[in-house]
Amino acid sequence: MTPADLFAAYADTLDEGPLEIWPTFFTATATYRIVARENFSRGLPLALMLCESRAMMDDRVRAIQELSMYAPRVMRHVVSSVREPEPDRVMATYAVFETPPEGDTRVFSTGRYLGHLALDHGTIRFSELTVIYDTALIPTSLIYPL
Amino acid sequence: MTPADLFAAYADTLDEGPLEIWPTFFTATATYRIVARENFSRGLPLALMLCESRAMMDDRVRAIQELSMYAPRVMRHVVSSVREPEPDRVMATYAVFETPPEGDTRVFSTGRYLGHLALDHGTIRFSELTVIYDTALIPTSLIYPL
Amino acid sequence: MTPADLFAAYADTLDEGPLEIWPTFFTATATYRIVARENFSRGLPLALMLCESRAMMDDRVRAIQELSMYAPRVMRHVVSSVREPEPDRVMATYAVFETPPEGDTRVFSTGRYLGHLALDHGTIRFSELTVIYDTALIPTSLIYPL
Repeated sequence: MTPADLFAAYADTLDEGPLEIWPTFFTATATYRIVARENFSRGLPLALMLCESRAMMDDRVRAIQELSMYAPRVMRHVVSSVREPEPDRVMATYAVFETPPEGDTRVFSTGRYLGHLALDHGTIRFSELTVIYDTALIPTSLIYPL
Repeated sequence: MTPADLFAAYADTLDEGPLEIWPTFFTATATYRIVARENFSRGLPLALMLCESRAMMDDRVRAIQELSMYAPRVMRHVVSSVREPEPDRVMATYAVFETPPEGDTRVFSTGRYLGHLALDHGTIRFSELTVIYDTALIPTSLIYPL
Repeated sequence: MTPADLFAAYADTLDEGPLEIWPTFFTATATYRIVARENFSRGLPLALMLCESRAMMDDRVRAIQELSMYAPRVMRHVVSSVREPEPDRVMATYAVFETPPEGDTRVFSTGRYLGHLALDHGTIRFSELTVIYDTALIPTSLIYPL
């Protein structure tokens, strides 16, 4: 599986579900975090979402699924410029669009992925994935992984 | 020609024309349809556009070209995550943008392509292509293929 | 380096900086220009930006860096459909998004890249790059390369 195939499958899982599959893209001890570009470039540890193991990701999935008041939106990830600057290190660019139930599609977030890969039980998984989003303001509606 | 090259050429034809070339990406008996995500996931047969042969696609092209009152807009397809989950089966993600003659560029539609490929007279073509768009509402201005 | 890798590195440099690196993607005598789709298809020589050598690109970079009153925005290039229709000729599609300091991300520009490549001191560089943008109106705020 190439890095481009991995990101394609990852994006497809977030857009099409089921969301329970999302943690399986990570090793058991992987770190996943979503950080603002501003905080990332200043080296600040602030994260909009932080999971320090796959078990924490499973918890996050359950929490999202229990939030029944949450309005359903369709998300669509367009991932481009997937590259592997060093072995087991991957980078990619993303634009995520959201479509509310009866509304127009709009840009939800743009930014970058920085990841580390590991061969885990014969499958390539993320041992670390950082999502760096371009907006300075935190989109408070975000409870979904990116 | 890889699936990524095929989608790149397909998208380029829709964006840059000439539109008469569009049906040549399909086999003579191919099915092309545009369906709303909602209807697709419920298995409903409703389609925003349905062509059950290349001849029907040629008719569609002629109908579009005769609609002279139609305001010219520039469309731009960004296709990503092209993959081939099984031999001759292809999937991809798209975001299409539109730019009106004197206005700002905006998101027109996001969604997915699901296709089947066939080797037809030495050329790889779609024997089936389904466009699944994310909006619930039908964009009534849509008369163009996606 | 594949054409896709080249465009990924090019886009990353424009989005993440430093901007001084941008001219190094070109040969010393390369031409870089940004033209409106309308002007391009009519064959008009009008360009929104025109640099006829790498030295002119270096000047442009210095001019941008001295414009301190310029509001910082984050740009994000999503480049897709990279292809090489003939040896040393490349094409790609782009969507560029901008995020103002305290605002929402929006579509800044969509369009195409048409380029010629040359092997220059052992590195693949653009000997020519034309950016064709879809809007008819000139975005007057544009002083950055695309």
